[in-house]
Amino acid sequence: MDHEVADLPSGPLDIYRKKASFNWKDMLRFIDGDEIIAFKKHVFRTLENDPVFARRPGEDIPVEKMRELTFLRVKQLFRYNFFTKEETMANPWKTVILNDCLGMYDWAMTAKFFLNKGMFGATIANSGSARHRKYVESTESMTTFGSFALTELSHGSNTRAMRTTATYDPSTQEFVINSPDFEAAKFWVGNLGKTATHAVVFAQLYTPDQVCHGLHSFVVPVRDPKTLLALPGVLVGDIGKKLGQNGLDNGFALFHNVRIPRENLLNKTGDVTPDGRYVTPFKDPNKRFGASLGALSGGRVSITRMALINLKLALVVAIRFSATRRQFGPKDTEEIPVLEYQLQQWRLIPYLAAAYALEQFSRSTFMNFVEFQIGQMMKDNGHRQAEMGREIHAIGCSSKPLGSWTSQRGIQECREACGGHGYLAMNRLGVLRDDNDPNCTYEGDNNVLLQQTSNYLLSWLHAKLHDGVRIESPLHTVDFLDDFHKILGSKFTATTMEECMDSAVPLAAYKWLVCFLLEESQKRLEQQRALGKDDFEARNDSQVYYCRSLAIAYIEHTCLQRFHEQTTDQDTPASLRPVLRKLCALYGLWSLSSHMATLYQGDYLSGRKPAELVQMAILTLCSQLKDDAVALVDVFAPTDFILNSPIGNADGQLYKNLWSTVMQGSQALDRPSWWKEFCSDKPVVGSLRAKL
Amino acid sequence: MDHEVADLPSGPLDIYRKKASFNWKDMLRFIDGDEIIAFKKHVFRTLENDPVFARRPGEDIPVEKMRELTFLRVKQLFRYNFFTKEETMANPWKTVILNDCLGMYDWAMTAKFFLNKGMFGATIANSGSARHRKYVESTESMTTFGSFALTELSHGSNTRAMRTTATYDPSTQEFVINSPDFEAAKFWVGNLGKTATHAVVFAQLYTPDQVCHGLHSFVVPVRDPKTLLALPGVLVGDIGKKLGQNGLDNGFALFHNVRIPRENLLNKTGDVTPDGRYVTPFKDPNKRFGASLGALSGGRVSITRMALINLKLALVVAIRFSATRRQFGPKDTEEIPVLEYQLQQWRLIPYLAAAYALEQFSRSTFMNFVEFQIGQMMKDNGHRQAEMGREIHAIGCSSKPLGSWTSQRGIQECREACGGHGYLAMNRLGVLRDDNDPNCTYEGDNNVLLQQTSNYLLSWLHAKLHDGVRIESPLHTVDFLDDFHKILGSKFTATTMEECMDSAVPLAAYKWLVCFLLEESQKRLEQQRALGKDDFEARNDSQVYYCRSLAIAYIEHTCLQRFHEQTTDQDTPASLRPVLRKLCALYGLWSLSSHMATLYQGDYLSGRKPAELVQMAILTLCSQLKDDAVALVDVFAPTDFILNSPIGNADGQLYKNLWSTVMQGSQALDRPSWWKEFCSDKPVVGSLRAKL
Repeated sequence: MDHEVADLPSGPLDIYRKKASFNWKDMLRFIDGDEIIAFKKHVFRTLENDPVFARRPGEDIPVEKMRELTFLRVKQLFRYNFFTKEETMANPWKTVILNDCLGMYDWAMTAKFFLNKGMFGATIANSGSARHRKYVESTESMTTFGSFALTELSHGSNTRAMRTTATYDPSTQEFVINSPDFEAAKFWVGNLGKTATHAVVFAQLYTPDQVCHGLHSFVVPVRDPKTLLALPGVLVGDIGKKLGQNGLDNGFALFHNVRIPRENLLNKTGDVTPDGRYVTPFKDPNKRFGASLGALSGGRVSITRMALINLKLALVVAIRFSATRRQFGPKDTEEIPVLEYQLQQWRLIPYLAAAYALEQFSRSTFMNFVEFQIGQMMKDNGHRQAEMGREIHAIGCSSKPLGSWTSQRGIQECREACGGHGYLAMNRLGVLRDDNDPNCTYEGDNNVLLQQTSNYLLSWLHAKLHDGVRIESPLHTVDFLDDFHKILGSKFTATTMEECMDSAVPLAAYKWLVCFLLEESQKRLEQQRALGKDDFEARNDSQVYYCRSLAIAYIEHTCLQRFHEQTTDQDTPASLRPVLRKLCALYGLWSLSSHMATLYQGDYLSGRKPAELVQMAILTLCSQLKDDAVALVDVFAPTDFILNSPIGNADGQLYKNLWSTVMQGSQALDRPSWWKEFCSDKPVVGSLRAKL
Repeated sequence: MDHEVADLPSGPLDIYRKKASFNWKDMLRFIDGDEIIAFKKHVFRTLENDPVFARRPGEDIPVEKMRELTFLRVKQLFRYNFFTKEETMANPWKTVILNDCLGMYDWAMTAKFFLNKGMFGATIANSGSARHRKYVESTESMTTFGSFALTELSHGSNTRAMRTTATYDPSTQEFVINSPDFEAAKFWVGNLGKTATHAVVFAQLYTPDQVCHGLHSFVVPVRDPKTLLALPGVLVGDIGKKLGQNGLDNGFALFHNVRIPRENLLNKTGDVTPDGRYVTPFKDPNKRFGASLGALSGGRVSITRMALINLKLALVVAIRFSATRRQFGPKDTEEIPVLEYQLQQWRLIPYLAAAYALEQFSRSTFMNFVEFQIGQMMKDNGHRQAEMGREIHAIGCSSKPLGSWTSQRGIQECREACGGHGYLAMNRLGVLRDDNDPNCTYEGDNNVLLQQTSNYLLSWLHAKLHDGVRIESPLHTVDFLDDFHKILGSKFTATTMEECMDSAVPLAAYKWLVCFLLEESQKRLEQQRALGKDDFEARNDSQVYYCRSLAIAYIEHTCLQRFHEQTTDQDTPASLRPVLRKLCALYGLWSLSSHMATLYQGDYLSGRKPAELVQMAILTLCSQLKDDAVALVDVFAPTDFILNSPIGNADGQLYKNLWSTVMQGSQALDRPSWWKEFCSDKPVVGSLRAKL
C-alpha cells in the first residue's frame, strides 16, 4: 500500500496554506489513519481511471440517461467489489468510508448500490431464515436486483397504517398480496422504478380466519429477471423526476392479488404454518422493542454521516473560492480575498467547525452502533443491550436532523458565499443541496423523529422522579441529567472573552440548557394534560419551544461533548490540539447562539455582558481560524475529479478552471439550432392582442 | 371585462374553506381590485389556451430545448403585447402584476422578456439621447435583441473595478472596445448566451490623452441579426447550465479591439467630442448621487416582489397539501390532516403571515419608487427628491435581502413540510427554490447590500448628534429614530398573552430594537476606529451582530409598520380586519423571535415571562389561523395550469392528481431501453478487484 500523502499543487492557495498553524497531512493521518488514506486513494483513483465513471462539470444529462449511467456504474462496482463481506466484518468502519467515497462521487449511484446490497440483502438476511438465503446470494451476484417497499402513496411516517395486505390461502399455500386501491400503492421505493426484480414488501398479514397480525415483510418478485418486464398482476413503474439523486430510479408498485409462496414471508418474528396458523417465537413482543428500535437506527446514523460528507464538499468549494476570489480592498489598487472579510468568515467558518465536530460525532456514533449490532448478533437479551437500543434510537432520531439541517443550511450559505459562480451548475453546490435535501425527510421526517428523542429523555425524568431511578445510560449521553437540580442552579460565570474561547464554557451552558428544557417540557406536558387533553394531543401541543428544542439541545450537547473530549484527549497529537480546540469552542458557541434567548429566559445569563462575550469570542475564533481554513478543508477534500467543481480545484486557479470548463461546454460557442426562429418569422407586435 | 371571481372546485379542501372566518373573494377584491383581477384572469387564460405555453408537471427538458422553448414563448409575448407603453404609464402597478403573472408561469421566460425590453431598452432610453432612439424602437419590434453587460468573470460587487476598456480613436471617430484578458470577459449576462444581437457594455472610457473617465455604457453589436453568428472580434457564448432559470441563456463576451461608432456611447452623463475631448453636463457629479442611487433601486424593489411570488406559490402547495394529507390521529381508526398539528402550523403559518406582510410592503415600496421616478422625469433636482433617492436606496438594499431570504427559507420549509412528495419535481417546490435562489445574489449580494442600508441609518444618527439635524425622511421610515433616547428607555410591558396578540406589541419592540442596534453599531464603529483601523476596516469589522443586524431590524420594522397601518386603516373592510390583524401580529412576533436575545441583552425584556408570552401568542395565533389558512392561500393562488403542482391543485384531490401525473409520465411504465444491460452481461463479482 502507498501511504504517501501527495502534496497539493502550488498556486494562489499557497498564501493561506503557508499561514496554517498545523500540518494538514498530520491532521489527515490523525483522522483517517494510513489504511483508510490508502483505501480512499485507491477508490478515488479507480473511479477516475475508469471511463464508465467519466463526466464533465455541469453536464446536462436527461433523467433516463442518468438512470442508465448509474446502473452501468453500479454494475461496475460489483466488478470492483471494493471489499468483501469478510473485510467488512473485520473493519466495519471501512464500509462507512466506502460509502463516503462513492457518495462524494454521486449519491444516487451509492444509494442504488447499497439499497440492493444493504437494504434488500441485509433485510432478508436479518428478518428471514435459512430458506431465504438464495435471495441474499443472488443479490450479491446481481442475478436479482432488490428494493425495499414500505412507504405507500398516502402513508409515510405512520408505518402502522400501511394498507397493503398479504392474505394466506392454505389451499395453495400461498400469500395473496393486494393493494386495496391506488392510494395504497407502494411509492418512493428506490430501485423499483426501472431495475428491481424483487421487492421486500411490507403488508398486513391476514390468516384465513380474517385475523390481522400486523405488518410483516415478504419477498415479492415484481419483474422477470430475463426481460425486466413486469410480472402478471404487478403494475410497477417510475415515479418520475426528483429534485435530485435522479440516477436512482424511485418507483411504485400496485399489486392485484399477486400470489407468492408461503416461504416468501420473512419469518424471523412470525410465521404461518402450511395450514394457516400464525406462530411467533416471542411471547412478549414488547420485550424486544428496545432492541428493534436500535436496529432501525443504522440508517439514521448513516444519513448523519452522508449529510456531513455533503457539507464537507460544499465547504471545500466555498473556502477555496473565498481564499482566491478578491473583491474590494483598503486601497483602490489592490483587492483582498473575500475570506478576509469578517462577514464571510462568520458565514463559513462556523460550518467548518461543525464539520469537524460532526466528523468525530458521526464516527463515535457509528462505533456505538457497531457495539450494539455485535450484541444483537451475540443474541444478547440483557437489560444493557435493550437500554443501548433505546439510547441509540434517541441518538439516531436527533443526529439525522442535526446532520441534515446543518448541512442543508451550510450548503445554502456556501452557495450564496460563492455569489453568482455558486449558482453555476458546474460548481456543484446545487447538486449537493439537492442531493442532501432528502436526508431531511427519508427514514423519518426530521421534526417527527425529534419526538422520539424527547420522549426518551422525558421517560428518564419520569423514572427518576417517580421511581427514584438513577439516570445513567450505556453510552452516557444522559448521565449528567441525574444532577439536573444542581445543574439548574448553575450560571454563566465567564467574565472575559478569552475565558469564553474554551469549549468548556458552551458545554456547561448546554448542560444547563438540556436540564432546563427537560424540566420545562415536562411541566408543559403536565399542563396540557391538566387541560383535559389526551396523551396524543398533549404531546403534540408540547412540541414547539419545548420537546423539539429539548431534543435538538440534547444532540448538540452530545456532539459537542464528544468533540470536546477529543480535543482534550492526551492521545490527540499535541500539534493538532490547538486548532481542534478552537474549532470545538467555535462550534459550541455558535450552536449555542441559537439558544441565547432561552438562556436569558431561564436566567442562566443576565445583563448585557454574556451575549457580548459569546459574540466577540465567535468573531475572534473565526478570525483566528481563517488562516487555517484552507488547510482544514484540504484535510477532507477529495481529488479534483471526485469534487467536480472548477472553482474548488486544489490548485486554486479559480478563473482559469472556470473559464476552460465554460469553453468546453458542449454548445458554448454554437449558434442555436433554432436560429432562424430569431432571424426570420419576426413577431408582429400586438398581433394576438385581445380586447379586454 | 369579466369581474366575476369563479368558485373553486369542491373537494377535500371544503372542510377548511367552510371554516374560514372571512370571505376569500372579498379579500381578493380588497387586495387586487376588479381591474387587476380581470387582467390576471386574462393573462392566465391566454397562456393556458396557447399550445406554445403547454407543459407537463415534472417534465424533463434538456437545457438547450428549454432555451428554445423560452425564446419561442418570449416571441409569443410580443404578439400578445399584454399592454402598451401608454397603458404602463397610466397604471404602472399593472407592469408589476404582469411580471407576477408571467413569473408564476416561469421566471426564466419573464427575465428574458424584461431583460430585453426593460434592462436593455430602458437603459438606452434613460442613459442615451435622441441618437439612440433607433435601438429602443428596434428592441420593441424584436429586430434587435438586447442584453445588459456589466459583471465580469472576476468582478461582480465591485463594479468600479471592471476592466473592459473603450478607447476613443479620433482618426476614425470610433470607440475600440477591448477585454484585457479572459478574467475581464463580460460574464453572467442574461440573453447573451444564445440570442442577444446587442449588448449595453460597461467599460472604462479612455480619451486619446490616455485619461480614464470611469465606467460608461456603450451599445455594442455582438451578433449579426441576420444569422445570429458572432461579429468579428467578439467571442460570445453560453456560460452553461445553472441551478435554475435555465430557460434564460446567460452568456459571456470577450472583445478583441471591437470598433463601434462614437455615437454608440450612451451620453447622458458624459460624451466625447469628435476630436476626442470628454465633456459632461454635470459640474459636480456627486450632486446627482442620491438620485442615481434611487434609480438603481427599481431592480431591487422588483426582486423583493418576485421573491414574494415564489413564497406564495410554495405556500399554496404546502398549505393545500397539509390540509388534505392525513397522518396519525388520536385514534387508530381515523387520521387527521397534518395541518392540525401544532408543529406543522408553526412551520408554515408564520410564512403565510409573512406573505401578507410582504404583499402590502412590496406594493407600497413600489408606489414610493413610482413617486421617485416621476420626480426624476420631471427633472426635480430638489433636496426632497435627492433624499427620497437615498431612502429608497436604503429600502431596496434591505428589502431584497428580506424578501429573498424569507422566501428561500419559506420554500425550503414548504418542501420539507410536504415530505417526500415535496421532493418530487412535478410538485414544483424544487423549481421554486432554484428559481428564487439568484434573488439572494443578483443586483448585489444580500450581505453586501445590507451595508448600504446601515450606512444610511448611521449617517442619520451622525447628522443628529453632530449637526443637530432632525431625523425625518420623505417616506418616514426613519422618523421615529429622532426619539431614540426616549425609545431606548422603553420596556416590554405586556403582561398577558392576549395583549401580545396585537401587532402594536412587536412594533414597539422593533422601534426599541432598531434604536438599540443603531446606537450599538455606532459605538462599535467608534471602538474599531479607536483601535487605529481605517474606515474600510472599521466598517468591515462592525458588520456581524451590529450593522448587519441593524439593517435587517430596520427593514423588518418598516415592513411590519406598513402592514400594521393597513390592518388598522378604516378603509380596510371591517370583515377582513380581524384576520389581517392576526396575520400582522403573527408576522411581527415571529420575526421578532429571532431577535429575542438582543431584546434581553439590552434589557428591553427581563425575566421568564415576556419570552413565554411571545411564544404562546405565536402558537395561539397559528392555531387560530389554521382554519383560515386554505382561504388565505386561495386568495393568491393562480390557476392550476399556472401553479403546475398536482399536490397543490385547487380541488384538493391530492392523491388522484399526483397518481395520474405519475401515470402520464413519459416512460413511467416502460421497460428501460437498456434492459439488456441488466438481463445479459452479468458482472463477475470482483473481476476487476485490485490487490491493495
